[in-house]
Amino acid sequence: MGKAQCSYVVILACSLLVNLLVVFKLLYTDGEWALSWTKRSAEQAEQVAAISCSGHGRAYLDGLVLDGKEPVCECNSCYGGPDCSEFTTDCAANADSGNPYFLEPFWMQHAAKSAILVAGWHRMGYTYPDNSFISTQLEASIHKLHAVVGNAVTEGKYFVFGAGSTQLLNAAVYALAPENSSSPASVVASIPYYKLYETQTELFRSLDYRFEGDVSSLKNISDADHVIEFVTSPNNPDGKLNKAVLHGPNFSAIYDRVYYWPHFTAIPTSADYDIMIFTLSKLTGHAGSRFGWAVIKNESVYQRMAEYMSTSSMGVSRDAQLRALKLIDVVLETGGREIFEFGSNTMKDRWEKLTNTLSVSNRFSLQKIAPQYCTYFQKIRGPSPAYAWVKCEREEDEDCYKVLEEAKVKGRSGSDFAAETRYVRLSLIRSQDDFDVLIQRLSELVLY
Amino acid sequence: MGKAQCSYVVILACSLLVNLLVVFKLLYTDGEWALSWTKRSAEQAEQVAAISCSGHGRAYLDGLVLDGKEPVCECNSCYGGPDCSEFTTDCAANADSGNPYFLEPFWMQHAAKSAILVAGWHRMGYTYPDNSFISTQLEASIHKLHAVVGNAVTEGKYFVFGAGSTQLLNAAVYALAPENSSSPASVVASIPYYKLYETQTELFRSLDYRFEGDVSSLKNISDADHVIEFVTSPNNPDGKLNKAVLHGPNFSAIYDRVYYWPHFTAIPTSADYDIMIFTLSKLTGHAGSRFGWAVIKNESVYQRMAEYMSTSSMGVSRDAQLRALKLIDVVLETGGREIFEFGSNTMKDRWEKLTNTLSVSNRFSLQKIAPQYCTYFQKIRGPSPAYAWVKCEREEDEDCYKVLEEAKVKGRSGSDFAAETRYVRLSLIRSQDDFDVLIQRLSELVLY
Repeated sequence: MGKAQCSYVVILACSLLVNLLVVFKLLYTDGEWALSWTKRSAEQAEQVAAISCSGHGRAYLDGLVLDGKEPVCECNSCYGGPDCSEFTTDCAANADSGNPYFLEPFWMQHAAKSAILVAGWHRMGYTYPDNSFISTQLEASIHKLHAVVGNAVTEGKYFVFGAGSTQLLNAAVYALAPENSSSPASVVASIPYYKLYETQTELFRSLDYRFEGDVSSLKNISDADHVIEFVTSPNNPDGKLNKAVLHGPNFSAIYDRVYYWPHFTAIPTSADYDIMIFTLSKLTGHAGSRFGWAVIKNESVYQRMAEYMSTSSMGVSRDAQLRALKLIDVVLETGGREIFEFGSNTMKDRWEKLTNTLSVSNRFSLQKIAPQYCTYFQKIRGPSPAYAWVKCEREEDEDCYKVLEEAKVKGRSGSDFAAETRYVRLSLIRSQDDFDVLIQRLSELVLY
Repeated sequence: MGKAQCSYVVILACSLLVNLLVVFKLLYTDGEWALSWTKRSAEQAEQVAAISCSGHGRAYLDGLVLDGKEPVCECNSCYGGPDCSEFTTDCAANADSGNPYFLEPFWMQHAAKSAILVAGWHRMGYTYPDNSFISTQLEASIHKLHAVVGNAVTEGKYFVFGAGSTQLLNAAVYALAPENSSSPASVVASIPYYKLYETQTELFRSLDYRFEGDVSSLKNISDADHVIEFVTSPNNPDGKLNKAVLHGPNFSAIYDRVYYWPHFTAIPTSADYDIMIFTLSKLTGHAGSRFGWAVIKNESVYQRMAEYMSTSSMGVSRDAQLRALKLIDVVLETGGREIFEFGSNTMKDRWEKLTNTLSVSNRFSLQKIAPQYCTYFQKIRGPSPAYAWVKCEREEDEDCYKVLEEAKVKGRSGSDFAAETRYVRLSLIRSQDDFDVLIQRLSELVLY
């Protein structure tokens, strides 16, 4: 063989080898599946996710589409423009609702693990294989979650799913109210309380129960009276680990434990009450999915709550249940470690920034939360509450909401918690942008 | 150049060309996106979809997983075994609930178009950009859908979304009942009626409304009385295009139009009533998503229904809304042509098979549905109802449910529709397997 011929053979051999390798790679792609019908939707999702919105907004698959192009950016408050890059310097800080966007960065960091591809024919029917409206797999994951976190005893208890905690609150009231009693049961809570207990109970105008306001409004009650007490722990708005005030043969409590996760509080003990309510919203931050669950001790109470869910909405969307399963399974992969460290560090950091900011003056005070031993992190933890419960200390600042509003801070008035208007709740669980603007506005206010 | 050398060059050139093409293909993949974070979930979905279950069952992403393997097959009734290949010859036909699996094959045929990839951070917040619980994009698609199908006038009307039609039924009753009236409004329907109107209205035990049964039970009503009439059209169970019976200044009607789609009936005219209720369940077959909508003329009624949805569940799962948007957009791609042809042909075929089967004897009779001009298909159409309303004609067959049950046919008794027990409803919208077994059992019964 001549020199030229020899090098031809070498080049040819190399070329053929490359061919072989590439064809092998194409066929087997590292043992991965060659995608077919899922490709298009996967591409769409990646294209939408790649719209950056300058880090101050988000484009969604179901966002508004202009001129047949890609979905538009939905900007965080105080940001605008087509790519959310324009900051409005004098805009108001939004610290109103409990939109739990503080966990959004966590899910963006775990994109591959938390994505779900839903086939067009996924769970079209009403029921799961056991003829219920409740996914057995999801129920098992939630059991495991509570065992791992140690925040609630669920062994031997029953589960009911609802559209967030919201739908379960009235389901619980319904289940606890005596049937065909001569007088309606009294529904109460301790001030300051989450206003929805009141608006929801009043909306339904039931013959069987009636909202009566603060626990202290019940004067001269006898053991014969039926009372249903909402106990929120940690409390919304002030983060206190409340316990039931009333105890008696016909008194029952609905424990709203939606904030009882290591993001927001030390977990001193595993809660073990007759009815406890939780929601995905304050665990993974997915308020929009509308998925919550109740853990119930008593079988007949469980049956009445399940009947309520069937009759009022035939259970909870199977799409929401699929999403909850995926998200909770991601949480469980590290025994909750990753998300709870992320969440509690974020909330602790925000609380410290807020207390430092307000400490410059005596005009505002915050609720006190003592450090406490957390069985989950196995150490003593300082406060990291979901909300600041702010008090305006100056005598003339009777309407604290107005004081803050004038300083371009939108909170939620104490009156929305049946408390004095001298108080305002500030939400600390919103997006980082919202929190940054809040601190900015408060810094200006305390200096003034 | 020698002959050998020449052929080397040719082979080398070919080989290099193949390399180039393959590398080009790898890099650009026909201008497609190179998938990253979505790949894993897309693969999972395809792997689950590839579990065949012998065509008599389905594996789901959130199905039961044994021994850490892939999800198990969930078999159609009468089929069993790990791959649903075992047919139980003597098993009962299930024609009970309105599980709309008849449309499942349609979605499997449109797999690529109807798949959605949901990112972990998709719509975590409570609200859409307009601060509502309702997707503007979805609302626009539903408007378009009704215009294309011509089954409802929606221009200038308001929309409220609910968990299926179920949650909207009570929301509508709530909105129509007078506030703080001295006597509760009467809620009525015409026999035979869908039992949920009764169970749901009774479950809530409201001070403002009360279920009174059949319209005819209202004796000596005056114009001053408040009456809310449920009008189901096409009617469940008998498919009749009902109209309101009562008319008066304080009488209002809730038009349950969930079956008013070309699958089940001719569309003689575009319905234009004050409150009309629809659901994804009977349009695309996705009962499990729990998504329905109400079309409302009056603004204050709309506001009360929206308030009901906010207070009882903070709206409908954003995951269900995303799914509904995708599915309705697939329907719209062909102006509904594809899905309604598929659906109406399936239902027409089933109805003909059923009538042929029962025509062998005089023991059972079916409801009569006259052919009618359909504005959607622009032709006269024969019947294709969702349910058969079967009457047992023999004098001794007073309990028709029992007669059928003994012949291994599980229907729903007339008493569940406040009608005579001589009637039974048979669901015709379930899976093909369910329908085939039903026809098999009925053939045996009429011969006997």
